[in-house]
Amino acid sequence: MGVIGGGQLARMMAPPATNLGITLRVLVESETGAAAQVIPHTRVGNAADLDACRWAGEGADVLTFEHEHIPSEVMAALEQTGPAVRPSAAALKHAQDKRIMRQAMAELGLPNPRWQIVRTPEDIATFAFAQDCPVVVKTARGGYDGKGVAFYTPDDNDWDDVEARLTDSARGRLREQFADWLANGEVIVEEKIDFAYELAVLVARRPSGHMRSWPVIQTIQENGVCAQTIAPAPISEEVARRARQIGEQVAAGLDVTGVLAVEMFCDHAGALTINELAMRPHNSGHWTIDGAITSQFENHLRAVLDLPLGETAARAPACVMVNLLHCQLADPRQALAPALAACPQAKIHLYGKDPRPERKIGHVTVCAETAAEATRMARQVIAILSGEKKE
Amino acid sequence: MGVIGGGQLARMMAPPATNLGITLRVLVESETGAAAQVIPHTRVGNAADLDACRWAGEGADVLTFEHEHIPSEVMAALEQTGPAVRPSAAALKHAQDKRIMRQAMAELGLPNPRWQIVRTPEDIATFAFAQDCPVVVKTARGGYDGKGVAFYTPDDNDWDDVEARLTDSARGRLREQFADWLANGEVIVEEKIDFAYELAVLVARRPSGHMRSWPVIQTIQENGVCAQTIAPAPISEEVARRARQIGEQVAAGLDVTGVLAVEMFCDHAGALTINELAMRPHNSGHWTIDGAITSQFENHLRAVLDLPLGETAARAPACVMVNLLHCQLADPRQALAPALAACPQAKIHLYGKDPRPERKIGHVTVCAETAAEATRMARQVIAILSGEKKE
Repeated sequence: MGVIGGGQLARMMAPPATNLGITLRVLVESETGAAAQVIPHTRVGNAADLDACRWAGEGADVLTFEHEHIPSEVMAALEQTGPAVRPSAAALKHAQDKRIMRQAMAELGLPNPRWQIVRTPEDIATFAFAQDCPVVVKTARGGYDGKGVAFYTPDDNDWDDVEARLTDSARGRLREQFADWLANGEVIVEEKIDFAYELAVLVARRPSGHMRSWPVIQTIQENGVCAQTIAPAPISEEVARRARQIGEQVAAGLDVTGVLAVEMFCDHAGALTINELAMRPHNSGHWTIDGAITSQFENHLRAVLDLPLGETAARAPACVMVNLLHCQLADPRQALAPALAACPQAKIHLYGKDPRPERKIGHVTVCAETAAEATRMARQVIAILSGEKKE
Repeated sequence: MGVIGGGQLARMMAPPATNLGITLRVLVESETGAAAQVIPHTRVGNAADLDACRWAGEGADVLTFEHEHIPSEVMAALEQTGPAVRPSAAALKHAQDKRIMRQAMAELGLPNPRWQIVRTPEDIATFAFAQDCPVVVKTARGGYDGKGVAFYTPDDNDWDDVEARLTDSARGRLREQFADWLANGEVIVEEKIDFAYELAVLVARRPSGHMRSWPVIQTIQENGVCAQTIAPAPISEEVARRARQIGEQVAAGLDVTGVLAVEMFCDHAGALTINELAMRPHNSGHWTIDGAITSQFENHLRAVLDLPLGETAARAPACVMVNLLHCQLADPRQALAPALAACPQAKIHLYGKDPRPERKIGHVTVCAETAAEATRMARQVIAILSGEKKE
């Protein structure tokens, strides 16, 4: 199987590929990167380089990727030749472009927040004042882990009631913040949901349409980056059922193959709104490696290869994953011994990446009887691996 | 970490090494073998070639192996230079030589069957008639999966009561069967235990002496080869406690580092007798990959690297592993789709080896509420992978 992208997601595909006897050919960004360290068949190249992408597909049954940053023209060319590309370009564009995604959700009758494409800084404020709510401003393409995302809250001081328009100073601030985004591509503005929980639903889907979703999880974001996930999410069965149904409707409606992550907001009344989509194994599914009978990585391989999917049930009453995001050590392996000693049931995953601020370089998963207990243990291990605590 | 041997055991070390960020350097028998297919840093060479073994240890913290067939002189030379060799030559010899093992068990006060070194074919029969029991005849060195093992049952027709010695025809038969073994090395004869169960205890032990053992499992042998394991073994808590205690006494008494497997017989009264030792991850521990919180492969890496050991408790009430030994297909992957479809909770492991009669080329593990249910599902999947059944 060919894979474009050599980060931790491709790296984490290696164990299930090894188990099932599936050979991976991976187009990596660097010969010392996360995937190249552990996979024999790799070549350095860029996802924008068609020939390099074609190399990954040579002799493979299927070509997949670990990120959505494959240019449309490369996707189109790959689909015309070589092995099946899964998910397809037609599905992938919904994870590449937020306008296309919002339009598709609307057409499928799935719950979007109120949203609009904006052309000027004034449009952002006008939308916020008209809806009378705080808003999220996003670039339609290329955002990632809090990048390309900003907020604006309508403020009476920004509005000139007499002229019924933005004040000059507010316009100046918005221009300063968003002129570059608006000049470089489409910008979308969305109602900021006052959520009780952020949730994620993962679905694996085969070309035949058969699919399986995992238990709904809660994600806890810090500075726009996923810091922790809790499985199962502390929501009612009814909300969980609806969330999985929405996830499966998105997968079917967009004809996704492989793993799809649907991030959602759950408000205080239990109403669900779709936030973002990812069409690949996703950080919100890392818990499945140790916490579910079949991991998202194994089912991604199975789904794109059109093999029957594995059982997605959890293995334990509660499973918590915490990302290693803030490592003060030169290498988290320096703290491996005390981290392993602190919690014998913790599963530590290190990606072979050098620590940098906000960079995801590993994660820790703990299964336990309760989410509180699992959280305490996982956070303790992360504190040691990050150099904050000694033991 | 350096590893000598490139079969399925080294291959199964790859996933936990990937997770923990441990780099493996593996001396493999073939560049297309089980381990070389999935591990980037390999070199082809023989365990009898000191220079090749030294390559595996270059720049590594520790050198370990996946089989016991390292000549003593190579072990001695490796221990004088390069990184720590774990387990040590002094420990390993007990897994290489059955006479040395039996003597050590006797010195540790651990339960041996009645046994004796034999020099002539007559000695075998004389021992059997003196003990008045069926016996097992084994080469002291080099036996594996039923090879180097034979049986003899005393038969009144073989004994000349008047002369008080073997009949000529019995002597002739024994000579025919065992002359080569006796000419090529030491041969040991042991009382054949009338067992209710064959059990295995796996223990991981660090250089510091800290150790953890897994739940005791039952092994089911067919033609001298492990066909299936059942975790936990269907024995009383008291027998299980004694079995784990014996396993830990062996590990401590022989100063083992890494994973030790102690195979035992349990007779109908619950009495335990030590059968064989292996000083490496062992077929009887493959269930731990999917059925225990920490697998034997992960704890072997942790033990030889002197890292704190992981929790060894089971993840489910019952866990059954069945080996893929008799595959009629050219490649078991031809049957992967129906095998995966037959049991969504089955965990299939294929070693990338070509099918040959009696060759272990994969295994299937199923966790369930009962051993009977897990056995039924695992055997069904194996029947499909072996080409016996279509679905």
